[in-house]
Amino acid sequence: QINGERLWDSLMEMAKIGATEKGGCRRLALTDLDKQGRELYIKWAKEAGCSVTVDEIGNIFCVRPGTAMSLPPVGTGSHLDTQPSGGKFDGVFGVLSGLEVVRSLNDHGIETKHPIEISVWTNEEGSRFAPAMMGSGVVSGRFALQEILDKVDVDGLRLGDELERIGFAGDVPAGNRQYHAFFETHIEQGPYLEAEEKQIGVVTGGQGQRWFNAVIKGQESHAGTTPMHLRTDALLASTQLIQKVEAIAKAHKPGCGTVGFVQVTPNSRNTIPGEVSMSIDLRHPIDEELTQMDAELKAFVKELCEERGVEIDLDPFWYYEPIAFDENCISAVRGATQDLGYSHMDIIAGAGHDACYVSDFAPTSMIFTPCLNGISHNEIESTTPEECEAGCSVLLNAMVRMAEG
Amino acid sequence: QINGERLWDSLMEMAKIGATEKGGCRRLALTDLDKQGRELYIKWAKEAGCSVTVDEIGNIFCVRPGTAMSLPPVGTGSHLDTQPSGGKFDGVFGVLSGLEVVRSLNDHGIETKHPIEISVWTNEEGSRFAPAMMGSGVVSGRFALQEILDKVDVDGLRLGDELERIGFAGDVPAGNRQYHAFFETHIEQGPYLEAEEKQIGVVTGGQGQRWFNAVIKGQESHAGTTPMHLRTDALLASTQLIQKVEAIAKAHKPGCGTVGFVQVTPNSRNTIPGEVSMSIDLRHPIDEELTQMDAELKAFVKELCEERGVEIDLDPFWYYEPIAFDENCISAVRGATQDLGYSHMDIIAGAGHDACYVSDFAPTSMIFTPCLNGISHNEIESTTPEECEAGCSVLLNAMVRMAEG
Ligand SMILES: NC(=O)NCCC(=O)O
Ligand SMILES: NC(=O)NCCC(=O)O
Repeated sequence: QINGERLWDSLMEMAKIGATEKGGCRRLALTDLDKQGRELYIKWAKEAGCSVTVDEIGNIFCVRPGTAMSLPPVGTGSHLDTQPSGGKFDGVFGVLSGLEVVRSLNDHGIETKHPIEISVWTNEEGSRFAPAMMGSGVVSGRFALQEILDKVDVDGLRLGDELERIGFAGDVPAGNRQYHAFFETHIEQGPYLEAEEKQIGVVTGGQGQRWFNAVIKGQESHAGTTPMHLRTDALLASTQLIQKVEAIAKAHKPGCGTVGFVQVTPNSRNTIPGEVSMSIDLRHPIDEELTQMDAELKAFVKELCEERGVEIDLDPFWYYEPIAFDENCISAVRGATQDLGYSHMDIIAGAGHDACYVSDFAPTSMIFTPCLNGISHNEIESTTPEECEAGCSVLLNAMVRMAEG
Repeated sequence: QINGERLWDSLMEMAKIGATEKGGCRRLALTDLDKQGRELYIKWAKEAGCSVTVDEIGNIFCVRPGTAMSLPPVGTGSHLDTQPSGGKFDGVFGVLSGLEVVRSLNDHGIETKHPIEISVWTNEEGSRFAPAMMGSGVVSGRFALQEILDKVDVDGLRLGDELERIGFAGDVPAGNRQYHAFFETHIEQGPYLEAEEKQIGVVTGGQGQRWFNAVIKGQESHAGTTPMHLRTDALLASTQLIQKVEAIAKAHKPGCGTVGFVQVTPNSRNTIPGEVSMSIDLRHPIDEELTQMDAELKAFVKELCEERGVEIDLDPFWYYEPIAFDENCISAVRGATQDLGYSHMDIIAGAGHDACYVSDFAPTSMIFTPCLNGISHNEIESTTPEECEAGCSVLLNAMVRMAEG
């Protein structure tokens, strides 16, 4: 019922903005490329007859009217920003699936009782500016607007200034949105659907996350003249912390623990590193386990300071507990999948998604589709037109069900 | 006989160029600040009556004529470049001690048979461009000029272009220099003189060094959705390599092993690192031990590739064997120290110095002075006017001895 070819063509067209040599995408939040991606999308949404508004944190809302405009919309959406070396589908697939739903409804002259709304949430990736899911987090009330506008990237550029610069500091107050129901389509980004040979993941919830910044302080000194036993090497201390993050995760299956960002100071080959800044990302689907992982990390940091004589500042700047999606929305997705005859399984989201924060204030669930070898946050991230078509068809079906209800 | 106050004032004046908040110096090789430092020094040298020439690799040679101009000069010198967060004395002390020797000879109207030459060697630190001691290395013939001109920094800027840009690509052919004798004064940069309460280190040689670049390749993937056992995390592999470098050094006392530079790609907190570039610096005063350290490193790299499923490219791009300085020059330094009544000890240089390469083609040795807590390559690097005066007095005495001979 949806036009899979058109969906795929739009995905490929959007992927040209920030295209990388290895076939991926680099379209970091609030850069000129993000601006280009947003503008292309808005052009398409207007051509499809949508009205467009932008809120104070740069979220874009495109609405296709319902027959009863006073009713809250049935929403769908995701994000257009990518990782520094990201793929063509993470986020974009969810946004353009929403667009394809509207285009298909237009094609078939179908009117819905509830309006249909497609949202593009600002900085979902949390890579250039941390934490992730900022746009949906501000709307849900998890983050204070001003605090988020004041975040800076690694070069010290302020989020609020970048938002102004690319022309997406909108005037709609960020917050107070209502949805009759909300669905987000996304590639799984993990290996389970492929391993189980399922076309659709019916997402029942998302795992909890704890993000930290750690700064380890040792003492700079000469690499050739400082005897090994007189060193306070911040990098060596950091290696133990990085390994501990892995060990904690492995001890709490199926938890994850990752250090993705490291910055060494002064980063000179013949100077013993005096300071290391790093990120820590801990995840678990069960909150008690995540709490324990957090406790183990903190205890180890104390031990490490004593063992290596370093100072460590551990800043636990982001936490959210595991999310359970809405039973009705989950059923709508499962029902649509069955009606369309796709193979499916229930699944928990390993990544954070805007839907996790939307579920704070609206009945929500998600639709997952497989991706090649379960690889995402990589330029080689890959999926097929058929897999995208399946996910988008389920989305259309679930949304129309809800938009009539 | 030298003017300690004038020497100290010049050190403090030079330290203003690139002064850092914490009282150190950041005057990286071939930057605008390096240019400023070079120009101030040339102004001073000209005021002291020296002729000035610059060679193709940017080394500066300032000559005070001798009574027999056809004789090769007695040389001294060091470098003006610093670490990214370096101190006020590393290198600069050696250059300005040379200047103070000339100024003192002028004050006292002393003529020498051999000319006196002060050299400033380009990029001794090896921090912005690796390896270290480039200027002296080109003159000694250890490095090919063109190869060095083609080196690039971390931003891809070419050394030859930077040399042109700051106006120090000279026309004197780099090489073919002759010295009757050469002495370099330098702060020890290590803890031994202080621990033994000696004023002067009579440097008998320098330890050997092996420098490597290592690139570790894993696979980028999502931090929240990639199960721990399916990861190929380049950063985790690098932590083991960094720890191994420490372990190798500790097993070969008094060897040193350091990783000072690390760059993570894509360096995004929720992406498993796909690539890590790092430096490795191994040192030992005994060549056989250094060879063994090298072998252990290479064996471990092989093991690590198997254990973690990563690819590692290990490039051993720089090696020089331990250096023994010239017996006559060592005796000249020891004799001068004794004549002046300073406490002293023999010592091996832990750092690389331009004198190590000059000793390839001229009788050479070095004079060390203490530095506070043995700390160098740090903004808090510190010494006293008295310690500097002692080192410079020994230099004058040793040079004059040789310049008469
Ligand atoms: N979907 C996605 O990759 N989100 C980024 C936030 C996270 O790290 O989970
Ligand atoms: N003197 C000094 O710090 N030289 C830098 C080269 C080295 O790392 O040894």
